[in-house]
Amino acid sequence: MSTIDFALTCPAPAGRHTTVQLAHGGGGRLTRELVESVFVPAFDSRALRERHDSAVLPLGEAWLAFTTDSYVIHPRFFPGGDIGKLAVFGTVNDLAMAGARPLYLSAGFILEEGLPLGELQRIAASMRAAADACGVELVTGDTKVVDRGKGDGLFVNTAGVGVVPRNVAIGPRHIRPGDAILLSGDVGRHGIAVLSVRKGLELESGVESDCAPLAAQVAGLLETGIDVHCLRDATRGGLATALNELALDAAVGIEVEERAIPVCDEVRGACELLGLDPLYVACEGRMVVFVPAAEACRALDALRACHGGEAAVQIGEARTGPAGMVTLKTTLGAHRLLDLLSGEQLPRIC
Amino acid sequence: MSTIDFALTCPAPAGRHTTVQLAHGGGGRLTRELVESVFVPAFDSRALRERHDSAVLPLGEAWLAFTTDSYVIHPRFFPGGDIGKLAVFGTVNDLAMAGARPLYLSAGFILEEGLPLGELQRIAASMRAAADACGVELVTGDTKVVDRGKGDGLFVNTAGVGVVPRNVAIGPRHIRPGDAILLSGDVGRHGIAVLSVRKGLELESGVESDCAPLAAQVAGLLETGIDVHCLRDATRGGLATALNELALDAAVGIEVEERAIPVCDEVRGACELLGLDPLYVACEGRMVVFVPAAEACRALDALRACHGGEAAVQIGEARTGPAGMVTLKTTLGAHRLLDLLSGEQLPRIC
Repeated sequence: MSTIDFALTCPAPAGRHTTVQLAHGGGGRLTRELVESVFVPAFDSRALRERHDSAVLPLGEAWLAFTTDSYVIHPRFFPGGDIGKLAVFGTVNDLAMAGARPLYLSAGFILEEGLPLGELQRIAASMRAAADACGVELVTGDTKVVDRGKGDGLFVNTAGVGVVPRNVAIGPRHIRPGDAILLSGDVGRHGIAVLSVRKGLELESGVESDCAPLAAQVAGLLETGIDVHCLRDATRGGLATALNELALDAAVGIEVEERAIPVCDEVRGACELLGLDPLYVACEGRMVVFVPAAEACRALDALRACHGGEAAVQIGEARTGPAGMVTLKTTLGAHRLLDLLSGEQLPRIC
Repeated sequence: MSTIDFALTCPAPAGRHTTVQLAHGGGGRLTRELVESVFVPAFDSRALRERHDSAVLPLGEAWLAFTTDSYVIHPRFFPGGDIGKLAVFGTVNDLAMAGARPLYLSAGFILEEGLPLGELQRIAASMRAAADACGVELVTGDTKVVDRGKGDGLFVNTAGVGVVPRNVAIGPRHIRPGDAILLSGDVGRHGIAVLSVRKGLELESGVESDCAPLAAQVAGLLETGIDVHCLRDATRGGLATALNELALDAAVGIEVEERAIPVCDEVRGACELLGLDPLYVACEGRMVVFVPAAEACRALDALRACHGGEAAVQIGEARTGPAGMVTLKTTLGAHRLLDLLSGEQLPRIC
């Protein structure tokens, strides 16, 4: 069913809910329902239909990548980062996922009356350091203030603009059955780092967020001339959610091997303690890469040569079907469905 | 003092406050202090130093305009518009103020748990209609949800991208003493329309917001070949604030004639009732235009030929000094200073 059919046949909000639920922000099934039932029909544009992390758009002679994300993470400071660093790297990564070279960022702040100005300065400095670290410029901004009790200290939106090289065409619709699926590093660090502060957990080995820019890894990959089919960073909802989105949008089946997916001991331990599946826990510096199987080894070499990509591995492959389904081959050799989560696992993780 | 001097000499938040005040969002003196003391030193970039509504940036062969605004207006629906329409036209207008042709918008939503989904659909539809009305495309978006009590229903951020024609160089630093200052229509409608709902006022003649796109007027003006020096829409803080910002950023004096500034009777009446100065009340579809005095009449003709610009008038002129000061010649022939407001006149007006 095309998005236009959807607009014509489902004017009412889809699903069981008539009000916004926390899970609408969780990145799982309800987030997808919200986007499909409200935003896609309303905004319906070619770019949105591509279901990409960034829109890729003509602008004169160039191809422009354009993306936005708001950040509402709680708490604002966590091991390995803060909301400002996250906002810069998150948007840089969304541009990189379109194969773009990130260039410019905007920053829109929604401040709650009473926020300490010193904290705002600290976050602004962190944004600048993050921008410098990946060679992008913060070029335009906006500040709004809401009355006490009508916000939560600070929310920040970053939008980003980059250029996509002429020969690059990366996105869900370029995924082909048979593609090798690579993962750039171990998963779940960001979510556990945030939870460890939020829950006041004294996790013995202090997991740090993996919050990091992926643009250099993407540039390294593209420089090799490998025909990269799709890139997707595993953020809200973790690796499993990213794979599900891609399986749905590319109408392919995906099979991944549990044994191949790196999860560090500290994350695994914390997940067991908290009853979480690490495959659904947010990362902020990890991506999956779809390339033709024949180019998998070269692509891994290219990733491993880049800072942050040293632990890249192949975790599975795309198949002809069942379309939209992600299957995990467990360490015991059984197969289980890695579904989209319906509920909210970790609210306000980014 | 350059922004870098500022960064070196004032690392601590400027002014009397150590926490965010509502007035930091009002568009007046405190907003300026916040930007100067926190964001400019942290983000310091050539584009930010231009103090323009949009950053104008090289992108391959093109000049790109890039801007962002968050919208936290309360209430979300008001006579003549809603938060969605405002978010689209507001960002389109910021692009137009750089002389750009607006092309693409992003939309980032921060939803509070419990928001009726029907309301979100209504706002999304309003954004689409507004985008269609000015020929821009909503191409990328994001949704976050915060827990009940940590937001206020819905905040929306729009960022926008446009192209600036090669021969166009518009901005505060192009203002010259002697420039004629034009105003595209009567002022204060948006603020009064919003206040009328917020205060439950039964204003007899129902003022509607002037919320409207200015891109067609700007295009009309540029088509004439007139050497437009600067454009600025009069939003938060109204006409007086816009003029103050420009006088400061261009280091010129500005004199305007009270008699020449159109304020409709309904707005004037409501302002008297509420103890407000209409020159400080927000507009969302009005701009000031700086052109060489010799081209003022042609520029007025061009504005008046466009929808929404029919009531354009000349209101004053730029002078060599006193730099940074805006003087109003009153209807009685006296002169009074139109200063930046220190406090918050109308919180959450956009």
